[in-house]
Amino acid sequence: MIILGIDPGLRTTGFGVIEKQGAKLRYIASGTIKTGQEGALPPRLKVILAGVAEIVSTYQPHCAAIEKVFVNVNPHSTLLLGQARGAAISALVSADLDVAEYSPTQIKQSVVGTGKAAKPQVQDMVSRLLQLPGLPGTDAADALGVAICHANSHDALALIGAMAPGMDGLRMKRGRLV
Amino acid sequence: MIILGIDPGLRTTGFGVIEKQGAKLRYIASGTIKTGQEGALPPRLKVILAGVAEIVSTYQPHCAAIEKVFVNVNPHSTLLLGQARGAAISALVSADLDVAEYSPTQIKQSVVGTGKAAKPQVQDMVSRLLQLPGLPGTDAADALGVAICHANSHDALALIGAMAPGMDGLRMKRGRLV
Repeated sequence: MIILGIDPGLRTTGFGVIEKQGAKLRYIASGTIKTGQEGALPPRLKVILAGVAEIVSTYQPHCAAIEKVFVNVNPHSTLLLGQARGAAISALVSADLDVAEYSPTQIKQSVVGTGKAAKPQVQDMVSRLLQLPGLPGTDAADALGVAICHANSHDALALIGAMAPGMDGLRMKRGRLV
Repeated sequence: MIILGIDPGLRTTGFGVIEKQGAKLRYIASGTIKTGQEGALPPRLKVILAGVAEIVSTYQPHCAAIEKVFVNVNPHSTLLLGQARGAAISALVSADLDVAEYSPTQIKQSVVGTGKAAKPQVQDMVSRLLQLPGLPGTDAADALGVAICHANSHDALALIGAMAPGMDGLRMKRGRLV
C-alpha cells in the first residue's frame, strides 16, 4: 500500500510518499511544492493544486493523509493557511483518494513516541524509520511523518479488528505498535 | 461575457451567473451548494469542488469573482472557512478561469453605492439590477453581487483605459459608473 503524506502550507507544502509492506515501511519520495512569497492567491493555490496532482499521478498512492494545521496567532495567516490546505485536499479528493487527518500531536506520538517531540526529533526518527541516508528537510519530514502515522494507524485498526471485544491497551513506541 | 460569482462558505457556498452585454447585465442563474453540517472535512470540500465544477461546466463562464472572507472571531471557524474558500478557488483555477477577489465593502459599494449597506439592501439592489421577479436568498444575492461588482470593475478598467493619463474621478452610483 502506497501512502501519500501532506504537510500543507501556502509558501511551502511538504509531501512524502512511503510504501507499507506488511510491518515494514519503505521510502519512495519526498519534497516540497513552493508557491513563492508574492502574487495573488488564486494562482498560488493553482500551483499547490497542480503540484499535488502531479505527485498523485507520478506515485499513484492508494490513500493520503494530511496534517491538521495550527490556528495561528495572526487570523489573516490562519485564513491563508486554511486556503492552502483546502487546495491540497481538493487535489487529493479530485483524484478520488480517501484523506485521513492527523494532528501534530498524533503524528509526533506515532513517529517519535511522545506528542511533545521537537522538529529535529521528528526529522531524526523519520530518517531512521525509513532508513534514509540523511535528514529530510522539515517540511518533507513532517509530510513523511504524517504518512508514517497513517501507516501505523492502519496497523492499529487491523490489530483492533483482530482483538476480542473489550480489549484495548495498544502502545506505540518509536512509531511502531508494541 | 459570462461572469460567475462565488460567495464561499463551508456549509453553504452561494453562486451567481450573469451575462454582461455592453452596459447591460442579464441574470442567468444562481443558487447554493450545501455540504450539510456534519462529517469529515475532505468529503465536504469534495462537495464544494464538484458543485463549482458542475456550475462551470453548465454555464461556461469566461471569468470568475469570489468574495474575500471575514476573519471570524473564532479562529477555528476562520480555518474552516479558509479551507472551503480554497476548495472553491481550486475548482475555478482547475477550469483555467481567472479569479478576481473583492472585499464585502467593495461589493456593497459597487452594488448599493455604499460600503456600509446591510444584507437586505444588497438583495434588493441585486434584484433590481438584474430585474429578478423576487428577492434572491442571501448567499445567492452575495454571489450575484460579487459578479456584478466584477462586471462594473471591467467597466471601470475599460473607462480608465480610454481616459487621458492623469485623469481620475470615476464615481459609482447604484452599481453603475456615472
